[in-house]
Amino acid sequence: MKKIINVPEEVVQDMLQGITAAHPQYVKQVEGTSVLVRAVKPENKVALVSGGGSGHEPAHGGFVGKGMLDGAVAGAVFTSPTPDQVYEAVKAVDTGKGVLLIIKNYTGDVMNFEMAAEMAQADGIQVEKVIVNDDVAVENSTWTIGRRGIAGTILVHKLTGAKAEAGADLAEVKRIAEKTIANVRSFGIALSSCTVPAAGKPSFTLADNEVEVGMGIHGEPGTHRETLRTADETATYLVDKILQDMPVKAGEEVAVLINGLGGTPAMELYIVNKKVSEILKDQGIKTVKTYVGNYMTSLEMAGFSISLLKLDSELKELLLATADTPALVQI
Amino acid sequence: MKKIINVPEEVVQDMLQGITAAHPQYVKQVEGTSVLVRAVKPENKVALVSGGGSGHEPAHGGFVGKGMLDGAVAGAVFTSPTPDQVYEAVKAVDTGKGVLLIIKNYTGDVMNFEMAAEMAQADGIQVEKVIVNDDVAVENSTWTIGRRGIAGTILVHKLTGAKAEAGADLAEVKRIAEKTIANVRSFGIALSSCTVPAAGKPSFTLADNEVEVGMGIHGEPGTHRETLRTADETATYLVDKILQDMPVKAGEEVAVLINGLGGTPAMELYIVNKKVSEILKDQGIKTVKTYVGNYMTSLEMAGFSISLLKLDSELKELLLATADTPALVQI
Repeated sequence: MKKIINVPEEVVQDMLQGITAAHPQYVKQVEGTSVLVRAVKPENKVALVSGGGSGHEPAHGGFVGKGMLDGAVAGAVFTSPTPDQVYEAVKAVDTGKGVLLIIKNYTGDVMNFEMAAEMAQADGIQVEKVIVNDDVAVENSTWTIGRRGIAGTILVHKLTGAKAEAGADLAEVKRIAEKTIANVRSFGIALSSCTVPAAGKPSFTLADNEVEVGMGIHGEPGTHRETLRTADETATYLVDKILQDMPVKAGEEVAVLINGLGGTPAMELYIVNKKVSEILKDQGIKTVKTYVGNYMTSLEMAGFSISLLKLDSELKELLLATADTPALVQI
Repeated sequence: MKKIINVPEEVVQDMLQGITAAHPQYVKQVEGTSVLVRAVKPENKVALVSGGGSGHEPAHGGFVGKGMLDGAVAGAVFTSPTPDQVYEAVKAVDTGKGVLLIIKNYTGDVMNFEMAAEMAQADGIQVEKVIVNDDVAVENSTWTIGRRGIAGTILVHKLTGAKAEAGADLAEVKRIAEKTIANVRSFGIALSSCTVPAAGKPSFTLADNEVEVGMGIHGEPGTHRETLRTADETATYLVDKILQDMPVKAGEEVAVLINGLGGTPAMELYIVNKKVSEILKDQGIKTVKTYVGNYMTSLEMAGFSISLLKLDSELKELLLATADTPALVQI
């Protein structure tokens, strides 16, 4: 295992301390936990909490800040955070207006976040939840009943965060989260595996020119393996599959996220985006905003996913609202 | 070779089109060239042009925008842009107040940018140049007489760009660039090689637990190879070497850049930053701002560099000025 770490047992705490040391104006760690919250707690707004296993950075701690999340809970690498950690996050961020949990659809995450919600509700805190399931690759997976939550989650954070920042109440914030989830789809491929520090060896292997289509962000299997095709062919295949699942008509508007899994150069992500933008233009679909980069990673895995978010005027306004978080810090 | 590309000959043009398709509000391509310029040309300011071989994304096209660059020239992968391409950039960005070329110290880059400067000067355009040589690893390298320019270049773009944006004249903008260069140092290690698309195979090989200390961003050799040490040990070694070269006293202020080379997870970069921030704190050095992420990459190479920029009040103000560019786009 070739990693720039100290000991596998400490990677999450070391990382969290590295994040707060880098971005003290944005985030602080709730003492004795693996929870990051905003450096300055906002007053009188609905609070958003997300999280999950570590190894997906900058998700989710990198998106704690104005216009996005209020708290992020980091589990061990690729392992759901425990209920007590999520509960700590909920307690830390609640302003009295309630807390929305944004959960990626994995069995462990759903169970532990729900248990935390019950603990907080017993304290009198209003808690609601939404479950993101944007991955069109497989209907069920090793780790999931139903579709998995992957990179589209970032767009859920963005739009829901904008609504909460604007002062909406918990029901309204939850409505926007659900509406965003209903309109976002993702699909990706992996070119290589990754190594969980505690395991010390790659989670799986691929042949020299083989890719896993529909790979999950923890290395779960996708739909099939095939020989790597060109960027244009791959982008076409993925966008077609997304649009079959969620038709977008000519004249309608979308946001695009080309998400790197951690080990793919920006050059390749932009080459993919060239084709994606051409496909959408050819179909008369208008791209309002495009994100290209590492937003929801899988350690050093090579590969990427494409997410499309279908917009109406309400979602578009929330998409374009300002946000200011560590992963998007201005130089 | 496992890359998400179409054909090796087209990677740079495909990428440039992918960048302009993603960020049309920031950048456009000068037709028939490999030059990116701001989508809206500013009036009446000194213009900054940088560039070099491709493969270092988001450098340099990702830093074209308000408060940083006016133009970026993309050569073939790891290959200096030709003089005529740099000349096209200079012509495109000049507003009549002159152009500063920010060149990383590689023999080919220096030669071709200088030739372009002469071509532009013959047209009556005022052109000045600065050469960034922040890498403390080696005094001379395969590709360089003198020290190489690496990730510290991003900080030169930032501070110099802020000065130009504020309306300073060419001499003043050049003075700031030189002052920044005089106060920035970088040092890094590589854990893996990378594959130039046109070559089709890795540039070099490292054993399973071996790292190259002082590696250049094109895979040039560093000072030596050794067995990978812990993150804390590595960070300590690199920071010590930087501070031996550029002493920073207790009470003085710095900016920190932990730069990923393309294939290293954000988790590991933050683990490095934890130790760097502790070392600086222990020495009484104040960190004003920290950047952690992929700023100056080497395709999919695993590894990172640490850059320290020593600040006085003038440099600090320029560091903290706002900038708005594609690589730092707000979600």
